[in-house]
Amino acid sequence: MIIQLKNGITPEQKDEIINKLHSINYSANEVTTQIGSYLIGIGKLNFDIRELGFMPGISDIHIVSDNYKLVSRKWKVSPTMIDLGDGISIGENNFSIMAGPCSIEGEENIQSTLEHLKKNNVRIMRGGVYKPRSSPYSFRGLGLDGLKIWYKLAREAGIKIITEVMQVSQIEPMYDYIDIYQVGARNTQNFNLLDELGKIDKPVMIKRGISGTIDELLYSAEYVFSGGNEKLILCERGIRTYEKASRNTLDLNAIPILKEKTHLPVISDPSHGIGIRDHVLPMSLASIMAGADGIMVEVHQRPEKAYSDGQQTLDYNEAVDLYESARKTYNLRRSL
Amino acid sequence: MIIQLKNGITPEQKDEIINKLHSINYSANEVTTQIGSYLIGIGKLNFDIRELGFMPGISDIHIVSDNYKLVSRKWKVSPTMIDLGDGISIGENNFSIMAGPCSIEGEENIQSTLEHLKKNNVRIMRGGVYKPRSSPYSFRGLGLDGLKIWYKLAREAGIKIITEVMQVSQIEPMYDYIDIYQVGARNTQNFNLLDELGKIDKPVMIKRGISGTIDELLYSAEYVFSGGNEKLILCERGIRTYEKASRNTLDLNAIPILKEKTHLPVISDPSHGIGIRDHVLPMSLASIMAGADGIMVEVHQRPEKAYSDGQQTLDYNEAVDLYESARKTYNLRRSL
Amino acid sequence: MIIQLKNGITPEQKDEIINKLHSINYSANEVTTQIGSYLIGIGKLNFDIRELGFMPGISDIHIVSDNYKLVSRKWKVSPTMIDLGDGISIGENNFSIMAGPCSIEGEENIQSTLEHLKKNNVRIMRGGVYKPRSSPYSFRGLGLDGLKIWYKLAREAGIKIITEVMQVSQIEPMYDYIDIYQVGARNTQNFNLLDELGKIDKPVMIKRGISGTIDELLYSAEYVFSGGNEKLILCERGIRTYEKASRNTLDLNAIPILKEKTHLPVISDPSHGIGIRDHVLPMSLASIMAGADGIMVEVHQRPEKAYSDGQQTLDYNEAVDLYESARKTYNLRRSL
Amino acid sequence: MIIQLKNGITPEQKDEIINKLHSINYSANEVTTQIGSYLIGIGKLNFDIRELGFMPGISDIHIVSDNYKLVSRKWKVSPTMIDLGDGISIGENNFSIMAGPCSIEGEENIQSTLEHLKKNNVRIMRGGVYKPRSSPYSFRGLGLDGLKIWYKLAREAGIKIITEVMQVSQIEPMYDYIDIYQVGARNTQNFNLLDELGKIDKPVMIKRGISGTIDELLYSAEYVFSGGNEKLILCERGIRTYEKASRNTLDLNAIPILKEKTHLPVISDPSHGIGIRDHVLPMSLASIMAGADGIMVEVHQRPEKAYSDGQQTLDYNEAVDLYESARKTYNLRRSL
Repeated sequence: MIIQLKNGITPEQKDEIINKLHSINYSANEVTTQIGSYLIGIGKLNFDIRELGFMPGISDIHIVSDNYKLVSRKWKVSPTMIDLGDGISIGENNFSIMAGPCSIEGEENIQSTLEHLKKNNVRIMRGGVYKPRSSPYSFRGLGLDGLKIWYKLAREAGIKIITEVMQVSQIEPMYDYIDIYQVGARNTQNFNLLDELGKIDKPVMIKRGISGTIDELLYSAEYVFSGGNEKLILCERGIRTYEKASRNTLDLNAIPILKEKTHLPVISDPSHGIGIRDHVLPMSLASIMAGADGIMVEVHQRPEKAYSDGQQTLDYNEAVDLYESARKTYNLRRSL
Repeated sequence: MIIQLKNGITPEQKDEIINKLHSINYSANEVTTQIGSYLIGIGKLNFDIRELGFMPGISDIHIVSDNYKLVSRKWKVSPTMIDLGDGISIGENNFSIMAGPCSIEGEENIQSTLEHLKKNNVRIMRGGVYKPRSSPYSFRGLGLDGLKIWYKLAREAGIKIITEVMQVSQIEPMYDYIDIYQVGARNTQNFNLLDELGKIDKPVMIKRGISGTIDELLYSAEYVFSGGNEKLILCERGIRTYEKASRNTLDLNAIPILKEKTHLPVISDPSHGIGIRDHVLPMSLASIMAGADGIMVEVHQRPEKAYSDGQQTLDYNEAVDLYESARKTYNLRRSL
Repeated sequence: MIIQLKNGITPEQKDEIINKLHSINYSANEVTTQIGSYLIGIGKLNFDIRELGFMPGISDIHIVSDNYKLVSRKWKVSPTMIDLGDGISIGENNFSIMAGPCSIEGEENIQSTLEHLKKNNVRIMRGGVYKPRSSPYSFRGLGLDGLKIWYKLAREAGIKIITEVMQVSQIEPMYDYIDIYQVGARNTQNFNLLDELGKIDKPVMIKRGISGTIDELLYSAEYVFSGGNEKLILCERGIRTYEKASRNTLDLNAIPILKEKTHLPVISDPSHGIGIRDHVLPMSLASIMAGADGIMVEVHQRPEKAYSDGQQTLDYNEAVDLYESARKTYNLRRSL
Repeated sequence: MIIQLKNGITPEQKDEIINKLHSINYSANEVTTQIGSYLIGIGKLNFDIRELGFMPGISDIHIVSDNYKLVSRKWKVSPTMIDLGDGISIGENNFSIMAGPCSIEGEENIQSTLEHLKKNNVRIMRGGVYKPRSSPYSFRGLGLDGLKIWYKLAREAGIKIITEVMQVSQIEPMYDYIDIYQVGARNTQNFNLLDELGKIDKPVMIKRGISGTIDELLYSAEYVFSGGNEKLILCERGIRTYEKASRNTLDLNAIPILKEKTHLPVISDPSHGIGIRDHVLPMSLASIMAGADGIMVEVHQRPEKAYSDGQQTLDYNEAVDLYESARKTYNLRRSL
């Protein structure tokens, strides 16, 4: 059960509602986000919802049968839009493209990518400065210094940036140099990280776990939301299966299922989802027809020279072709 | 290595080529299909291909590095078209829709479906008369008698039919009442069935195994082709993974990968691939943008009354919407 | 519901029971096996079982909540023993070893293996004469001629044989030269094959499907049993997962789960289950402690020369070590 | 390549070795652990190892073809023993049992468990004080205060404790109240956590990821080792597969494979691995025969009242039976 509280609710009114919940054996979890205040009641008993409905301080009450609550479409029917400023937003009435290299490699690489994106009206740049690597001996990214340079150049170009945060202690230093925090597939169930990202006022995109279920992804989003941050985006990036002809198995089924279950925007990452450069285009277009609100793709001026993921990275010509086809496909979907 | 033989090759010429192959430690598998004659050489040594090239009786030679040979796009670059007659064909320059009930339920069900398909210019009807069922106590289909009625009515309507063959002994009795044999996901590696289907002159559509790899699907097609039947179609229908929010995980990655590896047509079955009625539409359109040459969908006049698979079956209104959207999506793909 | 029928039941008595079942909306499936006669009632209504219990011709009635019935331990609590004759049997009070080459390779190979087995008191020899192969160009086994030679030599040595049957048409020709039919992992859901194996009076061992569930294995056994053949053995041989460090993932969880759910004997095949020669020993012993009634292992006089599966095949010395350790482990288990 | 350095190596000698490595295009990663100092050289060129071997300051050089280095058995053939003090150690010459509740629930629960363990000579108690929970609304454990009480009581009882650490900021506060840090299955690839655990002098047990590969587990151990901590234990706890008859699929294949690849001790967790109380015993014994150096099991005075995981938790009687059978099984294995 989600109880939306009125703005001017008094502490006494809130206590009374909480006491009422306890009296029917419901726990009461208080959530205050950038946008509103909620009480999340968790319990089993059925009772007459009107008993609560008449209490002062309550703006609305929703019974949500899903185990996750705040991210469920059962109470918030209208889709969430994430406003990044400067006329850039992510959500159902807009098609978002996030493009850029796997790893941020230096000023030249940043500058070249920003020019490419600007020319093609792509408003969000992706790139890693902290890289999760299986082996401790691999390149782990440029870190905060790289991020600061990137952010400065991106601001000048009017482009927003998304990059991965790997641990709690990075959140604060990154805060002033970032537009969207990305939670990577290895951290989808790093609950402490999710808790802390719930306390900030900045959009967060959560990738599905390497073999995470759709429900687990929604629960992870519930962590951030119940921590106080409603600015959430989900991302399908392929799951681990027995099939080794592709890097991962892009589970496009997840897109219509997520769009039905949650009001949050859903992005697809076909670069990781198939892992084969030549097939990123068709899988991007397939993602759009499946209902994705946007795509995230790896692009590099010379993929064969990229620090990482070159085999799934598009060059600029391929990328331009992708942007155009993707926009046409999105327009068709909207017209159907 | 695939050696295409000339039409008028003499037995002596063929023997000489075979001897030559044996002399370099290659096995020689003779294949004669409806369309041509081939020698498939399997071996490891490198040698000068020109030694073979000048031998009489040879029309062309192709080195194929894939382990499957005849189904590989490495020797036959142009896509295979399957001609069903009456102007109906399946392949890359055409978009095919196969629609109908999960199980053929009787004359009324057939008649109703045929009218629906005819009105909407869908030329191929799907339906099961032999049903593979996990439990021996479940309905197993109407069998040959049902097939005969269905075939007669479909012929009158100008519509082709595709249905599943489950065992070798059914091939011959079904032959006169069928346009395409379907090999189901539980029989993808029923090698005896594949062998026998190689001996007939009728199209065969092979579904990917329940947890079959892309390579295994190609090998299964190689069985039929090397048995003598080139009229082959492949079908992606979802794989078994840990994710239980959908019936199967429709692996759309498989579509561009298959289209690159083989010259055979590739169909997608989103009904089984996601198993949720409301999401069959987006997954159909996604399949098309991924590159599918056609889709197979379950349609019933009253899905809630269907003998089987009702939860993933469209009613006629939903189906009409699907056909239209699918055709628009296919046209967009062709225009890109 | 399983209704065990009395031996002397009259057709009229049986009809009356069937009519009674129909009157409460239960289907009635008649099953007559080598051992008994049953009516399997499938339905949903609850009713007073005593209404049936007093009808003449009924020996016993069991309510079975599982979806599979005859193979369930819910009605037949005591474990099934499969008697192969000559004092050899498979089941819970006995530890069975089945050993031999992947493929039967010829008389010398047979003779050498039989001597090795005899010397070590192993009473069942495994080996393939029909080999399911992914590629149509691979060696497919010696066929019926090989089987006849093998059978003759094995009889002389006092050893029973188990070999794979791949299709319906092989059942009858193999019948006189075989002690146990094996249904391979690619045929676990070849329902026609299972149906036909239900009609014969000879033990059948069904391997779990390549990505088959435990329930599907039980259903496949139900096919054979309901066809009339109670002489059934199940085999865990590893499932397909994302992990590629082993050939398959031997799912030893399946063993205690199967032993709880069914009265049928359960064999483990660690050779296929891990696919690495050095680790077949520990996985055999682990299988025994998990509760297996026997093990099936690949053994060859010179594994590096074996026609197939050499990398998972033991030589004779390794095999002798395995037999001894396995017997000690089994004895420990029985003593706990 | 692993270069073991002499204790008294001078900075100049080390610089010379590093320069030599750079001159052949090898990177040089310095690692100093509680036990020794190493240079890990990563590169591709073959060269004459004797060129390095004669340089002063080098104690030994090992070419390791695995991608992970320090945890590989290719250089350290003898098994690592983890000494916990008071005569308690974990490793190949010893059989370890770790038992206790899923969550530490309070003083009474601790006291009862400690008495049970002491009586049965089990020297390591498991239990969670920080619980990773899919839902943010679930019980998350007693935290540091609970740990302090537990540690005090365990010290009095002469019992060591293992508990999960979920994030970097918990490492330091936990340090004085813990014997083994456990890294949970959701944190196996939390590389920052692994890095920080590399900097402390306290044993760490890493669980395999929920769908982690064997290689990924070894890489995660390499993170900790290369950070400076050699006191490492690995744990197989089941992987996520399509099979839902068990909670996870306990991959016992992983045990002999890990024991061959690494010198680190390997523990099995059958409680999570099968998730069914009645089957924890056979899967424990199977783990031992597969080669496990110990087992971790969930035990509670009243499983049906446990805060979490009750369905897979043993009561004390069942546990006593397990300890005895496990010890007999271990003794058998050692005798073979």
